[in-house]
Amino acid sequence: MIIVMKQDASLAELGQVIKVLEDKGFHPRPSHGEKGTVIGVMEASAGDLEGLETLPGVDQVSPLSSKFKLVSRGFQAESTVVKVGDFEIGGKDFVVMAGPCAVESEEQYLTTSRHVRDCGGSILRGGAYKPRTSPYSFQGLHEEGLRIMAKAREETGLPVVTEVISPETVPLVTRYADILQIGARNMQNYALLDAVGRQRKPVLLKRGLMSTIDEMLLAAEYLMSNGNNQVMLCERGIRTFERATRNTLDLSAVPVIKEASHLPVIIDPSHAVGKRAYVEAMARAAVAAGADGIIVETHPFPDKAMSDGEQSLDFPGFARMMEGLRPIAAAVGRTMRAGAPKPHEGGPMAGSYIP
Amino acid sequence: MIIVMKQDASLAELGQVIKVLEDKGFHPRPSHGEKGTVIGVMEASAGDLEGLETLPGVDQVSPLSSKFKLVSRGFQAESTVVKVGDFEIGGKDFVVMAGPCAVESEEQYLTTSRHVRDCGGSILRGGAYKPRTSPYSFQGLHEEGLRIMAKAREETGLPVVTEVISPETVPLVTRYADILQIGARNMQNYALLDAVGRQRKPVLLKRGLMSTIDEMLLAAEYLMSNGNNQVMLCERGIRTFERATRNTLDLSAVPVIKEASHLPVIIDPSHAVGKRAYVEAMARAAVAAGADGIIVETHPFPDKAMSDGEQSLDFPGFARMMEGLRPIAAAVGRTMRAGAPKPHEGGPMAGSYIP
Amino acid sequence: MIIVMKQDASLAELGQVIKVLEDKGFHPRPSHGEKGTVIGVMEASAGDLEGLETLPGVDQVSPLSSKFKLVSRGFQAESTVVKVGDFEIGGKDFVVMAGPCAVESEEQYLTTSRHVRDCGGSILRGGAYKPRTSPYSFQGLHEEGLRIMAKAREETGLPVVTEVISPETVPLVTRYADILQIGARNMQNYALLDAVGRQRKPVLLKRGLMSTIDEMLLAAEYLMSNGNNQVMLCERGIRTFERATRNTLDLSAVPVIKEASHLPVIIDPSHAVGKRAYVEAMARAAVAAGADGIIVETHPFPDKAMSDGEQSLDFPGFARMMEGLRPIAAAVGRTMRAGAPKPHEGGPMAGSYIP
Amino acid sequence: MIIVMKQDASLAELGQVIKVLEDKGFHPRPSHGEKGTVIGVMEASAGDLEGLETLPGVDQVSPLSSKFKLVSRGFQAESTVVKVGDFEIGGKDFVVMAGPCAVESEEQYLTTSRHVRDCGGSILRGGAYKPRTSPYSFQGLHEEGLRIMAKAREETGLPVVTEVISPETVPLVTRYADILQIGARNMQNYALLDAVGRQRKPVLLKRGLMSTIDEMLLAAEYLMSNGNNQVMLCERGIRTFERATRNTLDLSAVPVIKEASHLPVIIDPSHAVGKRAYVEAMARAAVAAGADGIIVETHPFPDKAMSDGEQSLDFPGFARMMEGLRPIAAAVGRTMRAGAPKPHEGGPMAGSYIP
Repeated sequence: MIIVMKQDASLAELGQVIKVLEDKGFHPRPSHGEKGTVIGVMEASAGDLEGLETLPGVDQVSPLSSKFKLVSRGFQAESTVVKVGDFEIGGKDFVVMAGPCAVESEEQYLTTSRHVRDCGGSILRGGAYKPRTSPYSFQGLHEEGLRIMAKAREETGLPVVTEVISPETVPLVTRYADILQIGARNMQNYALLDAVGRQRKPVLLKRGLMSTIDEMLLAAEYLMSNGNNQVMLCERGIRTFERATRNTLDLSAVPVIKEASHLPVIIDPSHAVGKRAYVEAMARAAVAAGADGIIVETHPFPDKAMSDGEQSLDFPGFARMMEGLRPIAAAVGRTMRAGAPKPHEGGPMAGSYIP
Repeated sequence: MIIVMKQDASLAELGQVIKVLEDKGFHPRPSHGEKGTVIGVMEASAGDLEGLETLPGVDQVSPLSSKFKLVSRGFQAESTVVKVGDFEIGGKDFVVMAGPCAVESEEQYLTTSRHVRDCGGSILRGGAYKPRTSPYSFQGLHEEGLRIMAKAREETGLPVVTEVISPETVPLVTRYADILQIGARNMQNYALLDAVGRQRKPVLLKRGLMSTIDEMLLAAEYLMSNGNNQVMLCERGIRTFERATRNTLDLSAVPVIKEASHLPVIIDPSHAVGKRAYVEAMARAAVAAGADGIIVETHPFPDKAMSDGEQSLDFPGFARMMEGLRPIAAAVGRTMRAGAPKPHEGGPMAGSYIP
Repeated sequence: MIIVMKQDASLAELGQVIKVLEDKGFHPRPSHGEKGTVIGVMEASAGDLEGLETLPGVDQVSPLSSKFKLVSRGFQAESTVVKVGDFEIGGKDFVVMAGPCAVESEEQYLTTSRHVRDCGGSILRGGAYKPRTSPYSFQGLHEEGLRIMAKAREETGLPVVTEVISPETVPLVTRYADILQIGARNMQNYALLDAVGRQRKPVLLKRGLMSTIDEMLLAAEYLMSNGNNQVMLCERGIRTFERATRNTLDLSAVPVIKEASHLPVIIDPSHAVGKRAYVEAMARAAVAAGADGIIVETHPFPDKAMSDGEQSLDFPGFARMMEGLRPIAAAVGRTMRAGAPKPHEGGPMAGSYIP
Repeated sequence: MIIVMKQDASLAELGQVIKVLEDKGFHPRPSHGEKGTVIGVMEASAGDLEGLETLPGVDQVSPLSSKFKLVSRGFQAESTVVKVGDFEIGGKDFVVMAGPCAVESEEQYLTTSRHVRDCGGSILRGGAYKPRTSPYSFQGLHEEGLRIMAKAREETGLPVVTEVISPETVPLVTRYADILQIGARNMQNYALLDAVGRQRKPVLLKRGLMSTIDEMLLAAEYLMSNGNNQVMLCERGIRTFERATRNTLDLSAVPVIKEASHLPVIIDPSHAVGKRAYVEAMARAAVAAGADGIIVETHPFPDKAMSDGEQSLDFPGFARMMEGLRPIAAAVGRTMRAGAPKPHEGGPMAGSYIP
């Protein structure tokens, strides 16, 4: 059950409702959003809460039978718009988050960031903490990586998104990042979801490669039930039997999520296909399918990347993809940030940087 | 190994080469296409065929190491264009094949066909033979269904595509249909592939719902090695763990196939998602991803359809989808057949037909 | 709905019931088994058949809500026992069907058959018609292969099981084989199911690697609704994301099928795991899980096998597996055919045969 | 690369080797086990470490090309035996870990524990911290649950295994539990793996439901590279398209892991099949396949369980399963703990406890 408090309810009234619920043996979870306060009550059914709507401050007691509560369109009909910098994600903007898989060095990252900006990208991506399948693989530059990202933001004016991999690093990453990313492997790391849900930066929640859409929505429910309403959902490919691509992009997640939830949807074609040659086609498809943005890997020298080089676009490839997306975005009524004139002409794409 | 014959080689020269191969214990498979004749030799390796290129009429002996031969871009660099009626599938046209899952009655089918034509659809689809999971489900009208489809073609001027489900029905279906469809369950029914490969109508080969792209290409190789070059590949969703959709549309099959093969690619969003509300978004994505067409289910009264009603667009939904596809097709440089003016105005969409 | 006729009903009474059903617009499917005749009525519901139980010869009208009819435990509570030679498959016997993937030559096949017999195998397997993913792979010896199998049966006294791949080859294969196998790729080849269902030899139906257990049961329903009650179901691995094995053996299919159906269950560990080293462990597990038998590949020289060599046991490996199965079979109350004394001693396992 | 130190090397020699490695820019990861100390060197190749084997204290420099190092049979040929209480897991014992999904109350847990003991179970399982897909589901009794488990251990003399869900709860859970379980959702939660790897209690690592066996081995590598050698691997079903069972038990993981690694393998049939009726058959299969133990859910009143009731055995079902396992264990040369005489006779199975 969900108890929706009136907009002008007082804290005292809220406290009273919570006490009543606790006295009944429930564990009420208040959640404070822009549109007011809502109290989720674990496993209570309609009969349990009879009479509750007469308490002072209570607007309604909603017998949401759905397992989804705060994330659902039933709970909030209008689409959530997450504001990051100048962008309204979930609104008319189609955003492109781009950058290398991992922040490897200042020069590598700044070079890439400038190219992303020049081509019209909206947000810079990059990994400072890298969860790796093998303990012996490169795990990221950690705080040094975050510092480099902050510097890139300063220079380009673009916000940054980066992954947070454990509850204890949440405060540090929150200090640097504009958007906190929860990686696919951590989608059901509930201690992390709780920690990220309790801070107030927007969150990009990636779908586990073994997770259903329902489970992704329930993971978002963890974030929102901790009070964070700025949640974006990211489809990044699921694991199937097909081996021609690294994973299988489940693009139908876009209409499925849009029907079930009010949250914005971002597509990650790079991790989904895992091969550079297929990224552009899937980025185009994402725009057409109604996604609110994409997150894409690009690297000045993909063959020398410390991780995920195979799926990273080189600079001309990224520029070409961006040009290809614009007419499709226009065709479906979306706007994209304009790039600098002719970003991919007049000299080597990667500047003078040699890794 | 592949032996490519010269364009001006004589039949006698061909016969001589085949005899030499048979004498060596091989089973040569000649394949006669527009670009001449090619002989596939099962399991022969380079050493086995040494000296063969000096025989009269032989152009080259190609040590294609790939398991794909006739279907591969390595064998034919330029894209195959399948001509059906006025349409060039695999060329600049973006074709929409549409109609009900099953032909249920003349009125149902003609009503639908007119609507498809008025909205700008290119080709009529419909099932006369329905392979059904249960022996007790409706199995189609058989020849009566084929006759109704032929009548719809006559009235609308649009070609028809329909499924063939066994070797013995190939001659009959070939007599009526413009395109023969091989269904997902039959993708590896080799007796059927051989029979369909031996006739000369274009073929729409649907991907098995748990077949890899490689396996689909090898199934197409069966068709082509029997001499039929007019093959179109259809991605229609694969089976995964996700249950929000009937299957998972593997749209990345488009760039993967386009890289590996010269054959046209058609997307079936209806069977992939299995739910009406998601079809349009996936149809849009298909255009943007570079598919050569879609095949879509529409029905005057989806809720009363004898099969697949849940995934069939109603008439207004189909009209809306068609309008939504046009600007995206234009954005990616594709042309679509124009529809009749305002097809979905001025009276009930489904005419006077009541099922 | 299912109409069960009385044991002593006359053909005239049967004809009358069918006429009544047809007059109501249904398509009755009579099915004649040992236990009498049953009529399946497509999509009829209880209300449609009211009053029918009063017709002469009708025993009961069963409102089987299940999609499974003839195959279900609801329809037949006692387990089906398929008699092949001296074996009662589905009863107390645990049968081992064994042999090479493909019949390659008389010597290869006879050598293997003797070893299978000596080790206590029950039934000889071997492929004369091989459905292959690539048109350029070895497709089997066809009738010559069948003749070799018949010869092996004559010499060893063991029955033979072999695959039938198209409706037109059913009569020929039926003439030679004791059990007809329908391969995984053909599990939903309905024309083939109908043709095999109409003859009277026992059938081994393999699960499609992309098929649910429900779909396998419905495929068996095709066989049974054509009058063939001697159906065995074979789990042979399903396609999943795991790549350490060729497929994933879904051993839980044993209790699932045993609960839903009365038909015997055979496990194919060879195709499931695809790697020799893992076959024995899975064969042991199959006995313990309650399967009625296994079908296993063995070859005198696996490394030189024309197909599936990687998963074929060599002769000592097969002998060792058989010895390992016996105590487990005894532990779960099953009997296995005794082998010749010390089958794997006294000379080279593969006789003098060199491929 | 792996550097194996001599058994009698001094700490000073170890320190010297580490310094040399760090000077070369590597991040050496020493790991101290019973058999001595080994240093893993991230991404170093043979050439990088030339000359290193001449340093004092170095036994050998092993060019393990495998991505698996400490977990691999290549690194340690003999099977690891994890000692817990009187049991040698990975040795001749076949252990049964059993109990309810969640610790719900002292009475529920003690009642169950006694029954497990009486039936011959080896180790008590139970969840005090429950990672739940929905934030509104019962999350466990936390420390109170741990206290109840400790009490059950005291009374029954059986060790306890319970899940740890975040790095910060590791010290607390370690204080109470004999085996720390890492749940399927956390298999790639690297912060948790590191924290658990740094303590010295045995670990039961559950396979992610869409993780490959390779990924599970690499997760174990995280544990072992932090110095914890007491790792057991648990297969608990993977996610596939099949819906008859909750997940698909990948029993072939047993021989696959046994070939690749020296670590013990435990099977969880309860979570794999998700339905009570199928648990026993899979438990039997696990013994026969060569697993070192199973972990099973049982509950006095499964229908009233707060989680996973559908897959929990009731008391008679658990007793019956245990009796059925004994002859199979004997047949494959394994020993099981003897139960109390006639544990399931003489009064109600669940004592006087009513939930």
